[in-house]
Amino acid sequence: MRFLSDNTASACPEILAAIAAANRGRVPAYGEDPWTLRLDRCLSDFFGTDVRAFAVTTGTAANALSLATVSPPYGAIFAHEAAHIATDECGAPGFFCGGAQLVLLPGEHGRLAPERFRAALAAHPTHLHSVQAAVLSVTQATELGTAYRRRELTQLTEAAHERGLRVHMDGARFANALAFLDCHPGDISWRAGIDVLSFGATKNGALAAEAVVFFERSLVQDFELHRKRAGHLLSKSRYTAVQLLTYIEGGLWKKNAVRTNTLAQRIGRAAGEALLHPVEANEVFLRLGAERRQRLREDGFEFYDWGAESCGEARLVVSWDQPEEDVQALCAALVRP
Amino acid sequence: MRFLSDNTASACPEILAAIAAANRGRVPAYGEDPWTLRLDRCLSDFFGTDVRAFAVTTGTAANALSLATVSPPYGAIFAHEAAHIATDECGAPGFFCGGAQLVLLPGEHGRLAPERFRAALAAHPTHLHSVQAAVLSVTQATELGTAYRRRELTQLTEAAHERGLRVHMDGARFANALAFLDCHPGDISWRAGIDVLSFGATKNGALAAEAVVFFERSLVQDFELHRKRAGHLLSKSRYTAVQLLTYIEGGLWKKNAVRTNTLAQRIGRAAGEALLHPVEANEVFLRLGAERRQRLREDGFEFYDWGAESCGEARLVVSWDQPEEDVQALCAALVRP
Amino acid sequence: MRFLSDNTASACPEILAAIAAANRGRVPAYGEDPWTLRLDRCLSDFFGTDVRAFAVTTGTAANALSLATVSPPYGAIFAHEAAHIATDECGAPGFFCGGAQLVLLPGEHGRLAPERFRAALAAHPTHLHSVQAAVLSVTQATELGTAYRRRELTQLTEAAHERGLRVHMDGARFANALAFLDCHPGDISWRAGIDVLSFGATKNGALAAEAVVFFERSLVQDFELHRKRAGHLLSKSRYTAVQLLTYIEGGLWKKNAVRTNTLAQRIGRAAGEALLHPVEANEVFLRLGAERRQRLREDGFEFYDWGAESCGEARLVVSWDQPEEDVQALCAALVRP
Amino acid sequence: MRFLSDNTASACPEILAAIAAANRGRVPAYGEDPWTLRLDRCLSDFFGTDVRAFAVTTGTAANALSLATVSPPYGAIFAHEAAHIATDECGAPGFFCGGAQLVLLPGEHGRLAPERFRAALAAHPTHLHSVQAAVLSVTQATELGTAYRRRELTQLTEAAHERGLRVHMDGARFANALAFLDCHPGDISWRAGIDVLSFGATKNGALAAEAVVFFERSLVQDFELHRKRAGHLLSKSRYTAVQLLTYIEGGLWKKNAVRTNTLAQRIGRAAGEALLHPVEANEVFLRLGAERRQRLREDGFEFYDWGAESCGEARLVVSWDQPEEDVQALCAALVRP
Repeated sequence: MRFLSDNTASACPEILAAIAAANRGRVPAYGEDPWTLRLDRCLSDFFGTDVRAFAVTTGTAANALSLATVSPPYGAIFAHEAAHIATDECGAPGFFCGGAQLVLLPGEHGRLAPERFRAALAAHPTHLHSVQAAVLSVTQATELGTAYRRRELTQLTEAAHERGLRVHMDGARFANALAFLDCHPGDISWRAGIDVLSFGATKNGALAAEAVVFFERSLVQDFELHRKRAGHLLSKSRYTAVQLLTYIEGGLWKKNAVRTNTLAQRIGRAAGEALLHPVEANEVFLRLGAERRQRLREDGFEFYDWGAESCGEARLVVSWDQPEEDVQALCAALVRP
Repeated sequence: MRFLSDNTASACPEILAAIAAANRGRVPAYGEDPWTLRLDRCLSDFFGTDVRAFAVTTGTAANALSLATVSPPYGAIFAHEAAHIATDECGAPGFFCGGAQLVLLPGEHGRLAPERFRAALAAHPTHLHSVQAAVLSVTQATELGTAYRRRELTQLTEAAHERGLRVHMDGARFANALAFLDCHPGDISWRAGIDVLSFGATKNGALAAEAVVFFERSLVQDFELHRKRAGHLLSKSRYTAVQLLTYIEGGLWKKNAVRTNTLAQRIGRAAGEALLHPVEANEVFLRLGAERRQRLREDGFEFYDWGAESCGEARLVVSWDQPEEDVQALCAALVRP
Repeated sequence: MRFLSDNTASACPEILAAIAAANRGRVPAYGEDPWTLRLDRCLSDFFGTDVRAFAVTTGTAANALSLATVSPPYGAIFAHEAAHIATDECGAPGFFCGGAQLVLLPGEHGRLAPERFRAALAAHPTHLHSVQAAVLSVTQATELGTAYRRRELTQLTEAAHERGLRVHMDGARFANALAFLDCHPGDISWRAGIDVLSFGATKNGALAAEAVVFFERSLVQDFELHRKRAGHLLSKSRYTAVQLLTYIEGGLWKKNAVRTNTLAQRIGRAAGEALLHPVEANEVFLRLGAERRQRLREDGFEFYDWGAESCGEARLVVSWDQPEEDVQALCAALVRP
Repeated sequence: MRFLSDNTASACPEILAAIAAANRGRVPAYGEDPWTLRLDRCLSDFFGTDVRAFAVTTGTAANALSLATVSPPYGAIFAHEAAHIATDECGAPGFFCGGAQLVLLPGEHGRLAPERFRAALAAHPTHLHSVQAAVLSVTQATELGTAYRRRELTQLTEAAHERGLRVHMDGARFANALAFLDCHPGDISWRAGIDVLSFGATKNGALAAEAVVFFERSLVQDFELHRKRAGHLLSKSRYTAVQLLTYIEGGLWKKNAVRTNTLAQRIGRAAGEALLHPVEANEVFLRLGAERRQRLREDGFEFYDWGAESCGEARLVVSWDQPEEDVQALCAALVRP
């Protein structure tokens, strides 16, 4: 029973069906096909404001290309120390931005506290010997399975904008945060001050599709050239675009996120005191100790250890296609004395 | 009737069927799935030697990542002046290699002449004020729809290897060259001295899949890290890998290439004296003049002008899913006085 | 008798004296010293317009940093195929610009012909698959010892500006061109449409000092940060600044350039039909053949072969501290049958 | 009375005299002059082992070029959070290394504790989603004016080498550490496991000269090309080389370092309980509070505030040419109630 990552999941049948439906005839390449041309409209409707949206195939590409449009090569990018861009993208931000430097901050439950960020920003030098404060990158839902509230986001982005920074949101699990908060997509994006969003679909049911959504449209100018020279402009663009259209218009984002959130919360409740962070998305972090982790594995549960070995922590992720029986079995195992 | 590019094509039904068949259950991500794990074996069998093979989603990624593994940031990359890496990848080689410089050479029918390359290499400085000769990149089939013979390739790669350069082949249309030459895949790759090959499938029937094939396996060490930090390691890797497996094992590469080559040659014959280059792949280059181009367009044929406006040249590309009637109509239009 | 390069020269006594005079007491570092603060005024007076000027220690730094302020990472930089940035800076433009690509053009006597550049620019694609035309870089005096006339420069820069390009001038030997043309410095720089100039002093008598001069002041914003992160902001800036002040205010630029130009012209006249390019600076290019080159070397003359071995060409450069007897001896040797 | 930085200092008369003495006649450029050719020997004698040594003009260049030879673009560079490469070089390591990422660690008195580094290294992932542990960079003397003992260095470098990392030392104030520890230069460099050293001279009396010293000679291969393409190979190399020769062979390094260390220690003693870190070089860090800082400034002392405003900390640096009276006056002011 696999709780390793939502990346192990398959793609939704609806997504595959949509790809098959788009596989008719020859259409202009490189984004001039009818599906790609519809992306702006689709995402604008979803977010309730005029946006420019682009499809790429990986979250790392979505994040790094977004950052490259908002950070100069001598920029400083502020982020939580657990951010995916800091720990799991093999230096992509530095590569795409031509050398930009990450400034990593701690924060409880994977969230940056607005006052802490404000203090870090105030302490960051403005003279030319230092990298220049350029971007704040926040993750929603966070790497520890929690979700920022709109108010927190607003406080963070206000602090950033006051000093002229742009704000990027890594929304690899944006749908899970949205489902948890049960609010309008605009409330935790542009209305909360986000300038550019990596809006993931792959983890939540697509085959390979992430949208880069620009709320601050002037930023688009560089993006397309950065994407092309990074090899992330697909020739047969229709197949990526149609995944996003289906994901959003077909309501898959919600259906899948609600399901995985619910199952994850069930696991969180079963875990009781072992639970490390509130379950506000599809990830559950537990302090189990070496022995209990061992026992769970013997019972057939697959998951990753988390953090330093000595902490005995574990991460369990629920996929959109996770059999409910897996979760039932896991809960049963967790409540067992 | 669209002869703009083989990029406008759809994906083969066999490819879509294989993707659907792979869409079962949860499997390890990031290349640890059964399909990706089978790539090395599949490509080794195809080329008749032990290779390491990796899947990416675009030709630009395949080329630029290949070059990044064989060129230092202060490297010189020799290529034909019409090479895709020089004209159509928005500076990707310079980006991925950290600043490497292209050295572009002319050559009849899109081919580099071995003696010309040898002379250019001899003239290239070795002192540290110059970028250092590092890579030869050849395109097979070329950008002008011709194919290098094995002997030419061998002469080119020998000149390169004598001076310590690595040789990359941009094989976005490798299948077409192979079908035209009707030889073993190894004959125009590793047996001819190629170190790393971008082996395209997208243009010839895949959805989005290109293989990077390392014949010189020591080169692999950097590749995987370069790929990850460029955002080109897909989480749900199975869907890209399975396209390549189907393309090769199912013989799609050949079926489609033979068909498009044959149709292109038919057009070439119909064009008579207007033909600019021998038709050895699925592309036809014609000198038509402004008026004749205009007339063809009025008759419903879509294609790109080529080169300087004053030359009156046109490029027509046959796609794997091109209706035969398109070609018949085009031939009829071309022979018309 | 050394005619290898003006880089082999010593520094003028006036320059050393000025350094010694500035070596008094402790002053603010990193450009806040009185000498550096006077650079803008000094260069503004020299050029007859308000400029921003910065000191660096090498011509490669001056050129590459200038280019980094005017080219995006996906930019195309147009230059003569003999340009120093193309042949002698080990890929610095690609490095500093984050991957920008050089587009090299031929041109008689080291000069780009305006109509040729205009044609190349017209042919350069504007779609996003190509690097984007961003910069024209011209060299004054050229690498072949000739000087652009103001009219030529104006034609080139007009063609560039019409399409939105910025124009950089590599003026490693700007003083020699200025002395030859005997015009106002503004006439072949800002009045001729130059946006940013690398104004060399090292070859012509300084120890290690080049000015980067911005006529288009909005460009300055990025320059200082690029310079710092490239390690080209000197802590004890006074010693570089004072070299430039002395070079310009003391009239060294003219005294030395007139002398070396005159001596070079004398050599050119002695060379007769062997002369390859008009002598308009301090460099002489001769077609001598292998035997005659050999004989000159046996007579004690040191110089570089130029171009392909088979051409039998030679480059001879006169330094500011070249003994007149060297030149007399060389002329005598050249007229000898 | 200026205690802002040792960068505000002038150059030693001995250095200027040596430059003047080298200013005779024309010599080969780009490092082929007799002074530069003597650098390897000079530094080898100094360190008691065969080294390769190169001169550059800034500490940022020395550090960033060193790092570029030992870190791949996907490398992780471990350093103290106060390291100059992290705070004062405007992202140079990321730029020169093509995107490498800094991993910053805290540590008392500016020093990395071996056990802490070992733990951080153990926790750093080895999978390809993360930047790869590549370099440890230590600063000697540290940014907080302390010096690593040989034993500490050995423990750090052993931990690094065990995992295949290279070790770089930022020795902008190496002479001060050496004078304080009163040991052989080899003891705190190659004998302690350092692979490459930025050995500063500028702060301690040179005009603009830093040596990059390779104890691990195989690393040299890339360095020279990186230096050239970064614009850090000076044409008239003799003037930089002769500064280093004079600094080392003339014993300036010691004379100046002993003097500034002694004066700094005197200040440290006068400061009493306000002293924040042991004075083991030429820098003194004091906790003075806002009022006392204000009073010192009114008394004519110039210095930088340090850290967050609320801490009331100050940094005072003694220059080689600091008048002794400045120090006497400062000590008197500090002991005043």
